[in-house]
This record gives sequence, C-alpha cells and structure tokens, in this order.
Amino acid sequence: MLDPREWFTEIDERSGSALSYRILDKLHEEQTPFQRIAIYETRDWGRLMSIDGCVMLTSRDNFLYHEAMAHIPLFTHTAPRRVVIIGGGDCGTLREVLKHPEVERVVQVEIDERVTRLAEKHFPELCESNGDPRAELLFADGIRWMAEAKAESADVIIVDSTDPVGPAEGLFNEAFYRQCLRVLAPGGLFVQQSESPIAHTGLILSIHRHLRAAGFPLTRSACFPQPCYPSGWWSLTMAAREAQDLTRFREDAARSRPFPTRWYNAEVHRGALALPEFLREALAAI
Amino acid sequence: MLDPREWFTEIDERSGSALSYRILDKLHEEQTPFQRIAIYETRDWGRLMSIDGCVMLTSRDNFLYHEAMAHIPLFTHTAPRRVVIIGGGDCGTLREVLKHPEVERVVQVEIDERVTRLAEKHFPELCESNGDPRAELLFADGIRWMAEAKAESADVIIVDSTDPVGPAEGLFNEAFYRQCLRVLAPGGLFVQQSESPIAHTGLILSIHRHLRAAGFPLTRSACFPQPCYPSGWWSLTMAAREAQDLTRFREDAARSRPFPTRWYNAEVHRGALALPEFLREALAAI
Repeated sequence: MLDPREWFTEIDERSGSALSYRILDKLHEEQTPFQRIAIYETRDWGRLMSIDGCVMLTSRDNFLYHEAMAHIPLFTHTAPRRVVIIGGGDCGTLREVLKHPEVERVVQVEIDERVTRLAEKHFPELCESNGDPRAELLFADGIRWMAEAKAESADVIIVDSTDPVGPAEGLFNEAFYRQCLRVLAPGGLFVQQSESPIAHTGLILSIHRHLRAAGFPLTRSACFPQPCYPSGWWSLTMAAREAQDLTRFREDAARSRPFPTRWYNAEVHRGALALPEFLREALAAI
Repeated sequence: MLDPREWFTEIDERSGSALSYRILDKLHEEQTPFQRIAIYETRDWGRLMSIDGCVMLTSRDNFLYHEAMAHIPLFTHTAPRRVVIIGGGDCGTLREVLKHPEVERVVQVEIDERVTRLAEKHFPELCESNGDPRAELLFADGIRWMAEAKAESADVIIVDSTDPVGPAEGLFNEAFYRQCLRVLAPGGLFVQQSESPIAHTGLILSIHRHLRAAGFPLTRSACFPQPCYPSGWWSLTMAAREAQDLTRFREDAARSRPFPTRWYNAEVHRGALALPEFLREALAAI
C-alpha cells in the first residue's frame, strides 16, 4: 500500500500506530556504535532524521519540540545562567537555549557524535549557534558525565533524548535523576522529554514517580503538539530542586523576549501547562 | 512494510503523510449514496470509523475532538439554548452538547443516515444521548437545511463535518457562512472544524477570510490535539455574529461544570485559544 521506496514509515509498536512521510530520496544511512541513523528528503516536511527507525525530527516541525524544550524551562527558572543538555545531538534545543541572553554557559553531552555531524550537514539551520563561545559540545555518555559532574553546578538540566529504549534507557530512572538533583544549584530545574500524553501515559506517571523518589519535591508536565512523533502530541516533565510552583514563569520576560519564535509565546507556555483532565486526574493519584 | 491485512492506513496526500493503526478485524464496509464507510477493530485504539479512506474517529481519542467542538463554543456563548449541528453523524459532539443544562434544543442535520446507524452499532457510547427529548436528528443536506432555516433561530451552529472535499465541500464557503449568519440569533456563535494548524494552515486562513467576507465581524481559531487526524494537531474556528471577544468565555461555569470531561477544563480551554506564533502572525496579516 505504501511503497517503501516512496514512503518512510515509523512503526510505534507500543501504541499500535505508524506514521509515514512521502520521501523523494534517502540521503544517508549509517550504523554508528550506538544506533542506526538515516536522513531522508521528504516531499512536504523538508529533511527527516530517523534513529533506529524512529523519526527524530523533520525540518518543518522540529521548532515545536525545540522551542518547548528550551523556552518552557528557561522562562520557568528565575535566572538560568548555566545549562546542561543531555542528548540533544541535532543541536536544535541548544540553538533555542542560546537565544536567552541570561545564559552564560551551555554544556551539551551527546553520546553519539555522528548525530551532530549529520545535523551539521543536513540541518545546518539547527547548528547555526554551535560556534557560540558560550556553548561546549561534548560527545560522551550523559549518565557517566552527570555522575562525575560537580555538585550544584547547573541551573537547568535538559534531557533531550530518544525514547526510553536503547542508549537512552538509563536516562529515565531514579539513579540518574538523583545525580541530576545533586548537580542542580539552588533554584535549579530539571526537564525531560516525556513522550506522548495519550499514547504513553503510563510512562509519564512513572517519570513523575521516579523523580519524586529521587528527591525532587515538585514535578509538573506540559503538553505540546509534535506531528512527527507518535500520536502527534508530546510532553515534557519538569522537576524543581526546591518546592516551587512550576506553573509560574517569567511571563513578562516571555512577552518581551528579544528573539523570534515560531511556536512559543507567553500564552502558549501557559496553555502547555494546562493539563487535560485525564492526565491531571492520573497525576493527582500518584 | 505495513501489511494491509494488519494495518489500516490513511494517506493524506495534501500533507504527504500517512497514519496507520494496527487492526484486528474489519467489522463492516459499505458504499452509501454519499461515501464509503468502514469500521475496524484496532488493537490499541478501540474501534475506528473511516469515510472515504480517512479516519473519522477512534474509540480511544475521539473525546478530544468532541469535547473541543462542543464545550469551547458552548462556554463561549453566554446563554446557549438552541444549538444546530451540521454533520456530526457519529453523535459524539451531540452527546457533549447535551451535557449542558442550558441547552433546550439541538437539531442535528447529517446528510448520511448510515453514519449515525453505524455509530449506534459500533460506538454506542457516543449515541447514548440520542434519545434525549431535546435532540432532533435529521438526515438531510445541511446546506439546503441552513438556506431554509428560520432567521435568528439558533444560538450556536456547530459544523462538524468531514474534510472540505466531497460532500462537505459546500460547508467551507462564503455562501454557506452567509446563511449561517442569517440563522444565528443575536449573540450567536458559529464554529467549524478547521483542519490542521500546521498541515493545512492555508485552509484556516481561507476559512477566516470567507467568514469575514460573509459578514462575521470577528473570527478566532483554537487548537487542540487529535492523534487520529493528519499531523495529530487540529483546530476549530469560531465566528461571532456581533463583535465580541472570542477569547472570553464563561470561565466560572466551565470550572463548575456539572458533568465529567476527559480533556476539557477551563485551563485547557484558555490553552486552546493560545495560538502558536506562526499562526497568530499569519492570521494577523489577513
């Protein structure tokens, strides 16, 4: 029905759904020590990167995810100066983070250098800030890096990883969260991509449970659209080092942000924090 | 790659994407005088109804669309007593509308009686209010019905139709909107499903233009998740008979609503009204 020469298809077995894009060409494919990366030219969504068969991003809609993952936590933290990104190899989140003038330093720890090298080639717009003197790109194991990082050395930790299978599995458990809590400075904020509100609800609940078990006093999810991921609806989950209201953010700063966005604005931020009833109820029960 | 005996696939040629669901069985298929309807049992999303190859709804996620289409306009109107639904044959929107105690009468005008008969059989939960004495189910051409309807006889008109191709095409133009405006009573509100914010942005702009050309002084879109539709992100567009702020709604009533919801709440309503920057800018320019 869908000729694989004309369509790229990702099957999400967990949700019994699949998403396909009409492709014009396969531009690249390689097996790295960590995973299988492929790049396609699609007809309508620009370029598409897949890792182990899952869509990571398309040129056309990655702004949704990257703006959510960067601007929601950075406007929630009162003074984000030192940011750590775990994963994030396509550099789209890094680019958004660097738009914040308060940010003095960003360390990005991506396990697979090939993701970044291929992003530089095929998604150059996402990598345009990689040369920013505030940015340091490391290619290393984020779990080990976090275990060795200095205590209270980061204001915001952003976990921008693949799904919790394969290389990213260890980024979704209590041991890792405990290290993140240790590395966060007072006022610090942790944020992680946390899959689909409707297709992977159980995973979101489990992330909240593990974060609290690790010692984070408060956790909060936000939802946003992301067409190229299963169900087209995605989430991030924030956790605060101290008990702070994670529905409050620097709304005036968000309104007067000195950079352009395509999705994010103060109203959209508040809207993302509005949880649908089924998720609100499920989270209230944990 | 996706065996059609195991997967139902909808191809959205407009957006060069396709969405598939793992199916256990095809329960029914028929050609009506208007369209081809099929019902599948999916593995993970309950039952699925398709019309002319496009997913209309699944058991698992239709609450998003139906709650958005009913509760957003009904809490925006100050006193919704007389409601007209054009289309809506699966009766899910009707069920949500009838949850509002202020509603005294709902006329639903569905062109294809078979949609409703099949919903009664395969989605009985959506049809549980069809016997409500306030509801009248007509099977007729909504365009003609609207042209013949009494002036100022409806408080809210909900156009819950298929895509603007085939039988529903005539529901997306100025002539139809003009009739709707005529039929709306003072304070009246029109709402229409208006496709994907990201995949069909041009259509949303065109709906706004046609609504204003028809004489509606104010129009406003809202966005919401809908996994089973292309891009997983959907919209509705409201138009007010008089110049009223469509971002205002009966927030206290929404908070103290005397019925359960799974998606809708006052915060989610406000969140749906928060337009992403790219759409806000595009709409500001028309």
